[in-house]
Amino acid sequence: MTMIDDLAERLRAGERRALARAITLVESARADHRAQAAELLAALGTAKQALRIGLSGTPGVGKSTFIEAFGLMLTAQGQRVAVLAVDPSSARSGGSILGDKTRMERLSRDELAFIRPSPSQTQLGGVARRTREAVALCEAAGFDVVLIETVGVGQSETVVAEMSDLFVLLLAPAGGDELQGVKRGIMEIADLILVNKADGELKSQALRTCADYAGALRLMRKRPEDPEGFPKAIAVSALETQGLDAAWGDMQTLINWRRDNGIWAARRRDQARFWFHEEVRVQLLARLRDDPAMRARLEAAEADVAAGRVLPSVAAAGVVDPAFPAKT
Amino acid sequence: MTMIDDLAERLRAGERRALARAITLVESARADHRAQAAELLAALGTAKQALRIGLSGTPGVGKSTFIEAFGLMLTAQGQRVAVLAVDPSSARSGGSILGDKTRMERLSRDELAFIRPSPSQTQLGGVARRTREAVALCEAAGFDVVLIETVGVGQSETVVAEMSDLFVLLLAPAGGDELQGVKRGIMEIADLILVNKADGELKSQALRTCADYAGALRLMRKRPEDPEGFPKAIAVSALETQGLDAAWGDMQTLINWRRDNGIWAARRRDQARFWFHEEVRVQLLARLRDDPAMRARLEAAEADVAAGRVLPSVAAAGVVDPAFPAKT
Repeated sequence: MTMIDDLAERLRAGERRALARAITLVESARADHRAQAAELLAALGTAKQALRIGLSGTPGVGKSTFIEAFGLMLTAQGQRVAVLAVDPSSARSGGSILGDKTRMERLSRDELAFIRPSPSQTQLGGVARRTREAVALCEAAGFDVVLIETVGVGQSETVVAEMSDLFVLLLAPAGGDELQGVKRGIMEIADLILVNKADGELKSQALRTCADYAGALRLMRKRPEDPEGFPKAIAVSALETQGLDAAWGDMQTLINWRRDNGIWAARRRDQARFWFHEEVRVQLLARLRDDPAMRARLEAAEADVAAGRVLPSVAAAGVVDPAFPAKT
Repeated sequence: MTMIDDLAERLRAGERRALARAITLVESARADHRAQAAELLAALGTAKQALRIGLSGTPGVGKSTFIEAFGLMLTAQGQRVAVLAVDPSSARSGGSILGDKTRMERLSRDELAFIRPSPSQTQLGGVARRTREAVALCEAAGFDVVLIETVGVGQSETVVAEMSDLFVLLLAPAGGDELQGVKRGIMEIADLILVNKADGELKSQALRTCADYAGALRLMRKRPEDPEGFPKAIAVSALETQGLDAAWGDMQTLINWRRDNGIWAARRRDQARFWFHEEVRVQLLARLRDDPAMRARLEAAEADVAAGRVLPSVAAAGVVDPAFPAKT
């Protein structure tokens, strides 16, 4: 039995250490690791599917507290929950400062849970691939729910939404009566807005903020693929574990409706196509950059173009043509 | 002397028929034409540069009347003016219905002017390359001003802005006191908004609309790379040739300021780099699609991915790897 066969078998049995090991393989930039990762992913197949929940929330909204409470609620129901982080900003600091496991101590000790911090990769493109493959590994390991968490830096929300079955936006109570500077684009991809910290002194403020967001969502065009009442805004308290069951109920309502109406399958199909074309593009460019001669041509051509010496299309042909020599 | 050398020589001498012939070459999809076009573009070089003005206006705003009046004003000053159209929608109808030359009869008869209708190409990507190369040909032919016109369908304004030194938005007087449904993104790329039809019964309405846009522009973040007062909105009448000299004066103020501050050169450099990377991407994909075996692999892989049988990254590697066989 090869090392990869063995890893695949242990992973399929749901062993968390095997899963962690497999994710390390897909995160690696080493060519031999990439080859092993590809072999492993091909061996595991795509038969099992989890509910993929994208979750965005800026620092300070209580995201770790929410994920811990929400995850523990699900594991208490016997569900297996994986948490993956997409945080391009952590590339700069070399990983989260405290570490995701420290942030969610109780959940990380839960036998039914698996938490994986954000990898230290420099490009969102690399993070996206790693996360998609990590999701596939979690599914093969039999997890029921995969939470894909992002801090919402730059384009990371769009990337996470493109690999999720539903997208949840976690917000804090707003200071005034104005909506927080939530970008319109994010509001548009959110299926569910959760206003956290609806507890103690902030409770009434959280309820007002929630009403504001509910109003804003009503003003936005209703998506024809969603049931009545969605997208929706509700107030929750991760600290007091209030409203988490309602949030889970809403997620299930939405996802069941999408499954019943073929929207879930169509969405997964479109996402897979999107990532396939993205991967072809990225891998083609990587091939050019990995070859020293081609890379040198690419850089020289770019310098010529930037200096206005050569037209972009002519310079590009000078790079692409030698990469595909005519067949003899 | 080869056919291409001859064409290059006549084009450099400013012969309009040679220019028309050269643009036909860059528009052609035939492999031999593409090779000749590349040879021609390389022979012509990039020494001469015109002022590239992007102009967007939806049908009904009087765009043809404006271009004719504006172009005739410039040719009367001895300037040579080329007009290129970017209209992805014409791909559907197989070219503009009336034809650009009919639309601008006087300008098309002007010795100092050159008008080229939009080609019937199906993809904005193809139109973008053809237009960039046609701009380069017009510059080599010694034109002083190149007007790149678009009807503003879909992404065409962004594409035109990415190849222009300045971007002008032509609008009609608004019906009410509300701004016409001008997309915010377009407002953001416009250097100059011209409210046309400031004549006859519409004059006061045009002035009001202009004031509204001026206010909207002031509310938008001022671009640090622009001089005081820009972006700007002014009222013009193409029909009565009123305000066209003021518009031209504003364009010159802006472009001289940008030249003096290194912004013009930086912008051209960034645009060239942008198009270079775009061209590399497009040409790499074209190579895959042009090869029957690779195309078959690409399509089979996409079907596998869409059906959820293979992960996007694994399927993409199955397409890209055989395209770059290992060197022996």
